[in-house]
Amino acid sequence: MIVLGIDPGLSITGWGVTEAFSRDKINLVEYGCIKTTHSTPMTQRFLNINTELQSIIDKYKPNVVAIEKLFFLKTSKSIVSLGETRGVIILTISLNKIPLFEYNPKLVKIALTGYGSADKRQIQYMVKTLLKLENIPTPDDAADALAIAMCHISSIKQ
Amino acid sequence: MIVLGIDPGLSITGWGVTEAFSRDKINLVEYGCIKTTHSTPMTQRFLNINTELQSIIDKYKPNVVAIEKLFFLKTSKSIVSLGETRGVIILTISLNKIPLFEYNPKLVKIALTGYGSADKRQIQYMVKTLLKLENIPTPDDAADALAIAMCHISSIKQ
Repeated sequence: MIVLGIDPGLSITGWGVTEAFSRDKINLVEYGCIKTTHSTPMTQRFLNINTELQSIIDKYKPNVVAIEKLFFLKTSKSIVSLGETRGVIILTISLNKIPLFEYNPKLVKIALTGYGSADKRQIQYMVKTLLKLENIPTPDDAADALAIAMCHISSIKQ
Repeated sequence: MIVLGIDPGLSITGWGVTEAFSRDKINLVEYGCIKTTHSTPMTQRFLNINTELQSIIDKYKPNVVAIEKLFFLKTSKSIVSLGETRGVIILTISLNKIPLFEYNPKLVKIALTGYGSADKRQIQYMVKTLLKLENIPTPDDAADALAIAMCHISSIKQ
């Protein structure tokens, strides 16, 4: 099963593709991020996110997509652009008829480390360990996306 | 010039199509709303909004689209779903390569009534008057969408 994890953001959307043969046998396929710049018009930024995400879907053909649920909210302005970006991403995935799962950040922490108050470094360390990587994937957004993908995989019944 | 005005919302998105020959000669073409129900999965609601909006674009072939800018913010939860809905709508319009304009609510009020603290009924009355209608269009979301379209038309240089 190919799982695409996504950590949405207007300036930087992290993504990570993993292949799971079972809950414990997971291979890293690829990861990266979609960047858009503040100086680009909003409609073009959304089109860029849509185009790049479509390329990732076409290339890796994920069976499912997992994204982080918006759980904790910061300033109103960033919430609006984050919400809009999530709408762009969710529509792109839905138009491809790929099942979408949402996980709140606490659940991602519990799935990877066993407790809900784990910090960012602990999550990233577990991503590195579980995927048998030499280094923690960068940037953080890509590591977060892989963590979300692995949270989905941990829910697979064996 | 065909102008499509949109008042975005997850449960109800108002839309209104007008044809402007000049700032003062504006015909109503059609208006309505796209409704989705709370019991429908989120991904399907977004697909329904995308599909219905695409039908409106295909049928009326707007030259420009005008939507309300998110200016005043209510609760965090509604902001997230409103942001996501706006993302779905903006991506749909952008994929059709139609120029998009955003207007904040105060500007819409000033454009239609001449002052920024006009209430909803005054705006709706001006929509009815300027479009030479017998009644105020319903629901409110459709009347608001027409007001946004007419705000755009009022910015046309003559």
